[in-house]
Amino acid sequence: MLKLFHHHSSCALASLITLSETGADFEAISVDLAGGEQLENEYLKINPKGRVPALVTDQGILTETPAILLYLAQTFPDANLAPLDDHFALAQVQSINSYLCSTLHINHAHLRRSYRWADQQSSYDDMAKKVPETMSASFDLIEREMFKGPWVMGDDYTICDPYLFTISRWREGDGVPPDRHPIIEQHVQRMNERPAVAKVLPQ
Amino acid sequence: MLKLFHHHSSCALASLITLSETGADFEAISVDLAGGEQLENEYLKINPKGRVPALVTDQGILTETPAILLYLAQTFPDANLAPLDDHFALAQVQSINSYLCSTLHINHAHLRRSYRWADQQSSYDDMAKKVPETMSASFDLIEREMFKGPWVMGDDYTICDPYLFTISRWREGDGVPPDRHPIIEQHVQRMNERPAVAKVLPQ
Repeated sequence: MLKLFHHHSSCALASLITLSETGADFEAISVDLAGGEQLENEYLKINPKGRVPALVTDQGILTETPAILLYLAQTFPDANLAPLDDHFALAQVQSINSYLCSTLHINHAHLRRSYRWADQQSSYDDMAKKVPETMSASFDLIEREMFKGPWVMGDDYTICDPYLFTISRWREGDGVPPDRHPIIEQHVQRMNERPAVAKVLPQ
Repeated sequence: MLKLFHHHSSCALASLITLSETGADFEAISVDLAGGEQLENEYLKINPKGRVPALVTDQGILTETPAILLYLAQTFPDANLAPLDDHFALAQVQSINSYLCSTLHINHAHLRRSYRWADQQSSYDDMAKKVPETMSASFDLIEREMFKGPWVMGDDYTICDPYLFTISRWREGDGVPPDRHPIIEQHVQRMNERPAVAKVLPQ
């Protein structure tokens, strides 16, 4: 049985929702990120990067959201979570998920994880101040250039949707004005209505 | 015919090498990053993000390295650039490429692109100072936990190899001691010996 190490507040929510969408049996283990459990030896044996998500499969452990989502889409083809037979469309899915991972998540991380890239408090303050600007600009680009509607990739729900939804939930904390991105806001509502999402969201 | 917008100094080198490995005809167009060509209107029509790489295909334009590399591997299966029939192994490939994209490339970007996340010169200086530490730690993890040898994924050359090679070439500029990572250094030499690599590297 698949086992996911995650936390609701983290990007691992995207993997949790995708597991829920597959309909497969799985075990979800919440890692106490605030308490530093991800940096303890026991967890570092699962993921030496000290991060969530980590998906434990019969063949080994997978990390990194875009990889886990692709794995789930390919392993559960009946769930129709990605255009598996269309190389170009699948690459578009991976392109959006790569942008979410390497641009939006990184912009967001400069609010509370800026110690990863600097040592001075003045730098942390400077970085935190810029987060509303960088996150707003990234969501602007998604609304204007990427989002097809009603789902990210158009008519079909894909593994882009839970990932965008997960990061969209961070907007308020990142100082992005809620009315700036009406398309994103509608997408969040649409996601909230999915049974597979409601099932795993914290009450 | 496929057309790649790239620059040798950028992560787009990974896509250029992979195109070269496929044996397909393609056109490579170098974008003058130092001169700011990537931010001019003409290029923004190709990639609104103002970055390289961008791969122009008959079906549309693809951006983001992990997506382009997967697309090339799937479109040219005879080139054997990824374990296409093994979902777990393919996810491992995507996991490594996702780590390169969202951790190593991001660490590197804090040297000369720190204006993306902060506004003060003192922050830029602070970030630049930390780059040797973050890049060294990331390469440590790759050597210790990820690299199987002789290629990244083991016996078979995959789309992880040109991407790791591309970022390994940045070590000197990022202040990573060259003798700290003997496995990475051997991998760079092994890559340099590939005809498809020599063909596209700047002389």
